[in-house]
Amino acid sequence: MRAVAVFPKTKEIKLIDHPEPNVTRPTDVKVKIINVGVCGTDREIWSGEYGDPPAGSDYLITGHESFGQVVEVGPAVQAVKVGDYVVLTVRRGCPENCIACRQMRQDFCYTGHFTERGIKGAHGYMTEFVVDDEKYMNLVPPEIKDIAVLLEPLTIAEKALMQVFTIQSRLPWECRLEQGGANQTCHNAIVLGAGPVGLLGAMALRLLNMDVHVVARDRAPNPKEELAKSLGALYHATSEKTPQQIAEQIGNVDLVFEATGAAKASFDFLQVVGPNGIFIFTGVPAPMIDITLDAGMLMRDIVLKNQVVLGTVNAPKIAFENGIRDLLEFQKRWPEAVRSLITGFLPLERFQETVKRTDREEIKTVLTLGPSLPLQRAGACAEPATGGRK
Amino acid sequence: MRAVAVFPKTKEIKLIDHPEPNVTRPTDVKVKIINVGVCGTDREIWSGEYGDPPAGSDYLITGHESFGQVVEVGPAVQAVKVGDYVVLTVRRGCPENCIACRQMRQDFCYTGHFTERGIKGAHGYMTEFVVDDEKYMNLVPPEIKDIAVLLEPLTIAEKALMQVFTIQSRLPWECRLEQGGANQTCHNAIVLGAGPVGLLGAMALRLLNMDVHVVARDRAPNPKEELAKSLGALYHATSEKTPQQIAEQIGNVDLVFEATGAAKASFDFLQVVGPNGIFIFTGVPAPMIDITLDAGMLMRDIVLKNQVVLGTVNAPKIAFENGIRDLLEFQKRWPEAVRSLITGFLPLERFQETVKRTDREEIKTVLTLGPSLPLQRAGACAEPATGGRK
Repeated sequence: MRAVAVFPKTKEIKLIDHPEPNVTRPTDVKVKIINVGVCGTDREIWSGEYGDPPAGSDYLITGHESFGQVVEVGPAVQAVKVGDYVVLTVRRGCPENCIACRQMRQDFCYTGHFTERGIKGAHGYMTEFVVDDEKYMNLVPPEIKDIAVLLEPLTIAEKALMQVFTIQSRLPWECRLEQGGANQTCHNAIVLGAGPVGLLGAMALRLLNMDVHVVARDRAPNPKEELAKSLGALYHATSEKTPQQIAEQIGNVDLVFEATGAAKASFDFLQVVGPNGIFIFTGVPAPMIDITLDAGMLMRDIVLKNQVVLGTVNAPKIAFENGIRDLLEFQKRWPEAVRSLITGFLPLERFQETVKRTDREEIKTVLTLGPSLPLQRAGACAEPATGGRK
Repeated sequence: MRAVAVFPKTKEIKLIDHPEPNVTRPTDVKVKIINVGVCGTDREIWSGEYGDPPAGSDYLITGHESFGQVVEVGPAVQAVKVGDYVVLTVRRGCPENCIACRQMRQDFCYTGHFTERGIKGAHGYMTEFVVDDEKYMNLVPPEIKDIAVLLEPLTIAEKALMQVFTIQSRLPWECRLEQGGANQTCHNAIVLGAGPVGLLGAMALRLLNMDVHVVARDRAPNPKEELAKSLGALYHATSEKTPQQIAEQIGNVDLVFEATGAAKASFDFLQVVGPNGIFIFTGVPAPMIDITLDAGMLMRDIVLKNQVVLGTVNAPKIAFENGIRDLLEFQKRWPEAVRSLITGFLPLERFQETVKRTDREEIKTVLTLGPSLPLQRAGACAEPATGGRK
């Protein structure tokens, strides 16, 4: 079967022929892949920054943002049946079976010896068929099949938000009393970055009734500003305002959801978090970004304002399940906005066109095993790649 | 009555005569102060770095680490009675009565308009009598009256640890499975700094059965190393080992409890926190400590290792209550060690001798309204200042 693979030794990215996997264990599920999202991690793996083939293989099949349909199940499978739509989780536990992995919280693996499909030591989803245990399958209702490829990037926000509510239960956080009055206001959230993780995060925060402020580089008007507005969020351009100016406009900054991977900008915004606020890092920047900062002032603020900085990576099955519930709600509230996050579908064969990000307005490009479709702009309704399948 | 007060305008610190307060409201309690601890915050206030007198006053009575005895109660008081030993909390709520202050969580005040006795807008405890509402009184069992002046600095760790367990309930944290085996190990904690907050924190962490590593500047042998050992903790000198060398010796660093206020050293140790680890800042450094750091690498680590950085300041009544339970346990397990944290008693009149820290081996100096006693060394058993009172 066809697959997109990277060869770390020769730094090639190729469409290869890879043996089709089969159901062998009683709890195995075979999935026909329909869509695979392309993300920054894929591009870093393709450029040779990281990515490890499985033991004994020269190549790694890339791709970890999946959506497919069950075509075969082992005799003991109960979670899904043939014909079901599914999204697979990404990380698999360590051989030591550490306390986190044993509890299906591979996302918190202690040993670091986990594998990740499409990233580290296990083949990914940019291929025709994959086989895996039923416990890694997340059942997708047909109503959201056209956007379900967005589930994996959404789970970054879902895992973050699960932690935020646990962490903030350390204090009276539900709602603040407005100064001098009896009215309650909900939280003010800044989303740093208007890529897929940022915009999906903004939607999840809007569902929680937060005041959401999307912060990105480009000045308005632009399609991402339009998209933010359609969610009831405000848009701020860092090319027009400093972090301090943005914060002043917002008032108390209760939460910052960083989804840029930009170290300098992140540390700039760390300094505008308000009392009892939480700053969430999700981006993985390159190392060796030396910055000079007033560590004394930063530490003072963190202490005197009782702040939390949280780093979060990967996501557990429960975050996928929460994400599915949220996607259903996004679809109801903002059908056009959520569809417009997918700015293009390309057939798997044309993966080379996605290796470099060339379009400033790209949000999420999806490789499809379905019919080829033209690139769509943000704001336009993308034709689902699944039309006519089944 | 006598009181130690700072005059911000003239930068004087003086023993003054201040009107004795009286019980006026039905829930007021009048306390005769026995002991008041001197801490870094007091020294910063005395040196003019901060500290605000109450509205309309030229001076601020300093001191926030209290221990005293109830001498009079209003008719509605139920929490304490005459003769009881008490420690008072420090922070009082904001006039806006924000959602945190309304819930007796002034330590998380949102408006910043709180007052703090002895620090900000309210007189402190370096005087003969204080009056306050019964809800700010913490009843001290007579068994620990000689060490109860250590309660307020201990509450810094108590509040931090309350938050740590809430925050870490985001993941499987109880105990890690040892690599390749079935044995469980408990958490590894680094305590940065061997002052009163650090050493009391080390004791609290030992009660939680953590492996505790006290890190301070001076090379061993020294009295603080002895003290750490007596708790079953290990001592490491930063003058002998780098943070990386210390971390390698420890293994996975699950928790760092910073109690130094030193920005540079803190950020150095932030870089050795392990997977799922938590770094707690409690120190308030001076601003304008510019450091250059690899923000990219720091952010990568925070994300890829699912880490949390927590800042914490002040403490709520519940932390005082937890601290009293812990002091009772410290007294049982390590009676000499906990007593040796008080390295000297001085009569209130001799407060000038405590304005500058002159003794490297000083841990906690206590001003007493009781008889004058010679300075004690760490490791020696300090004579209680309360002997013969009552």
